[in-house]
Amino acid sequence: MTASEGLTMQSKTPATFVLVHGAWSGGWCYARVAHLLRSRGHTVFTPTLSGQGERAHLLSGAINLTTHIADVLGVFHYERLSDVVLAGHSYGGMVITGVADRAPDKIKALAYLDAFVPQDGQSLFDINIPANTQRFVQAAGTVGGLAVPAPPAAYFGVNAADAATVDALATPFPLGCFTEKLKLSGAYCSVKQHLYVHGTVLPRESPFRPFYERAVAAGWSTHALSCGHHVMLDQPEKTAELLESLVSA
Amino acid sequence: MTASEGLTMQSKTPATFVLVHGAWSGGWCYARVAHLLRSRGHTVFTPTLSGQGERAHLLSGAINLTTHIADVLGVFHYERLSDVVLAGHSYGGMVITGVADRAPDKIKALAYLDAFVPQDGQSLFDINIPANTQRFVQAAGTVGGLAVPAPPAAYFGVNAADAATVDALATPFPLGCFTEKLKLSGAYCSVKQHLYVHGTVLPRESPFRPFYERAVAAGWSTHALSCGHHVMLDQPEKTAELLESLVSA
Amino acid sequence: MTASEGLTMQSKTPATFVLVHGAWSGGWCYARVAHLLRSRGHTVFTPTLSGQGERAHLLSGAINLTTHIADVLGVFHYERLSDVVLAGHSYGGMVITGVADRAPDKIKALAYLDAFVPQDGQSLFDINIPANTQRFVQAAGTVGGLAVPAPPAAYFGVNAADAATVDALATPFPLGCFTEKLKLSGAYCSVKQHLYVHGTVLPRESPFRPFYERAVAAGWSTHALSCGHHVMLDQPEKTAELLESLVSA
Repeated sequence: MTASEGLTMQSKTPATFVLVHGAWSGGWCYARVAHLLRSRGHTVFTPTLSGQGERAHLLSGAINLTTHIADVLGVFHYERLSDVVLAGHSYGGMVITGVADRAPDKIKALAYLDAFVPQDGQSLFDINIPANTQRFVQAAGTVGGLAVPAPPAAYFGVNAADAATVDALATPFPLGCFTEKLKLSGAYCSVKQHLYVHGTVLPRESPFRPFYERAVAAGWSTHALSCGHHVMLDQPEKTAELLESLVSA
Repeated sequence: MTASEGLTMQSKTPATFVLVHGAWSGGWCYARVAHLLRSRGHTVFTPTLSGQGERAHLLSGAINLTTHIADVLGVFHYERLSDVVLAGHSYGGMVITGVADRAPDKIKALAYLDAFVPQDGQSLFDINIPANTQRFVQAAGTVGGLAVPAPPAAYFGVNAADAATVDALATPFPLGCFTEKLKLSGAYCSVKQHLYVHGTVLPRESPFRPFYERAVAAGWSTHALSCGHHVMLDQPEKTAELLESLVSA
Repeated sequence: MTASEGLTMQSKTPATFVLVHGAWSGGWCYARVAHLLRSRGHTVFTPTLSGQGERAHLLSGAINLTTHIADVLGVFHYERLSDVVLAGHSYGGMVITGVADRAPDKIKALAYLDAFVPQDGQSLFDINIPANTQRFVQAAGTVGGLAVPAPPAAYFGVNAADAATVDALATPFPLGCFTEKLKLSGAYCSVKQHLYVHGTVLPRESPFRPFYERAVAAGWSTHALSCGHHVMLDQPEKTAELLESLVSA
């Protein structure tokens, strides 16, 4: 966004964005990106997944990936959305792939923000680094076995200014969202436009690098940002710009 | 129990038994043993754990090991039990150890029927054979990620006459019961009488053999029966006799 | 049961009893009656309804009459019962009527112990005294609106020796069990044997007297006991005797 465009300038092509957060998060993580996109005339939804953020009082072990896919499909249905740019961060990549498979005709583009990109029959645990999976199961085990406590913001390389906020707002994440294998009919393949944004600076091996590399090989629009895993917090303007690039494309 | 005693004879010392079933089961698995013990004048409870057997309509991912411990503690409280012989089969060993830690003064003896014997901080997944754990997580993943479908009766070496019934009555088991780590204060150590009954004939490596061997080393009353994992189905008379031996001991 | 028969005597016709408790109660209320019947060789189940007694930790606003009917049908299925004498106390009359409508071929006789006897389309609130209904809705409203706190034992005229225990073990009762209207196909009418036991001594107008009078008019086996509403606590021997009378009848 250049200064000359300003906040009151409308995009030439107002569009609809649905931004899906990752594990241990909430719609709150997209506040800046949503503001930027709305200020350019776009319609933006940042649904909070069941059991997370302001829905944390509904946390229960009964929540799984299917619940979260239904959460987002519900926004599509009740807000009567179509031609949506659907973005998912991290675990949110599981959710948006499932949503795209159920409602491909409502989706203009899929944007994976340092996210998992599952194939048919895969759970997040199946495509995460095995040591992480084991760590999460163990951590859940100490607090009832049904939800995984949030790792510290440092684990994700969150920028220093936001780290305390991220730690304060993080909520335990339902285990079933990690264990449930995603069933895909293949209908999602009819969505033709894809974006992958990778945050390259992580204080550990990144589970997302292989997905980024696969996206490059597949000819998606790919971008490696010199920041942590939470690209929407570390680089909100750039993230908004990349998302908006899908509209005019 | 000898033939001369018969089913209608009273035990000289009527006692109270609480028999806790294992995963994918229900109070129904103790029908024979309960009948034998009751016919000798004992009071017997065979509570079905939440989400299992006739409680299967209450199955949800929200059920964990803590739920099942509460299930059994509830029977103690509402039936005003004391001086109880508390038995657990298989996973039931997790439950009775937790119950014993919360209500050691109500328990006369602990009977592990081919069961897991956890220590503080351990989940069933922590003390099962790793390949089994992996298999169960994968199986849960294909059906929502929250409950593990029942293995066939053959997996447990159930006797031929009962196998079809066991398969018909088996119900999916909540994942959180396997992942939650049991917290033990150590109060359960004040229970002084222990029985371990091991079924030695399993068509695979037995996860229970190490617990049996540890029980032998610890000087518990130990018995290796030449039958499958479901000792109360394969050898009900012998199981009832061993349980009753704890009363007069 | 006469003194000469004694507790260890077998009944000439061993039978199966399922005893369903009323609101604010649990299987515990049948402990004496179950012991008496078992000591005569009968098989007895005293399932605790979801959210009550030792299932109180599962209390939720999602529990309704349908849940409780499923609770009892589950016992029939998983314990493989048939030819059952099915008894219900108070609210339990709603449950056993529903169970009888779903599984009439498994039931030998229906025993209403100072119980409601609903017809198709009726809820307990529809057939209770209006002032009681109003009182229960008001009481639920003060504690979250989803469960009715237990009235004191004195409200039911419980015998002096048991009153403190009844008060100690009473648990809040799910509102949906009172509001849900029972759907009856009429299949339950194929059960031909009926018992009604009425406790005549209540410190208020009895909602059960009209059902007793209707039972008399219908030619059921009817008995008016000079005791409070909890006939199984106030007169356990007499209650067991009346229940057993259904076996040989």
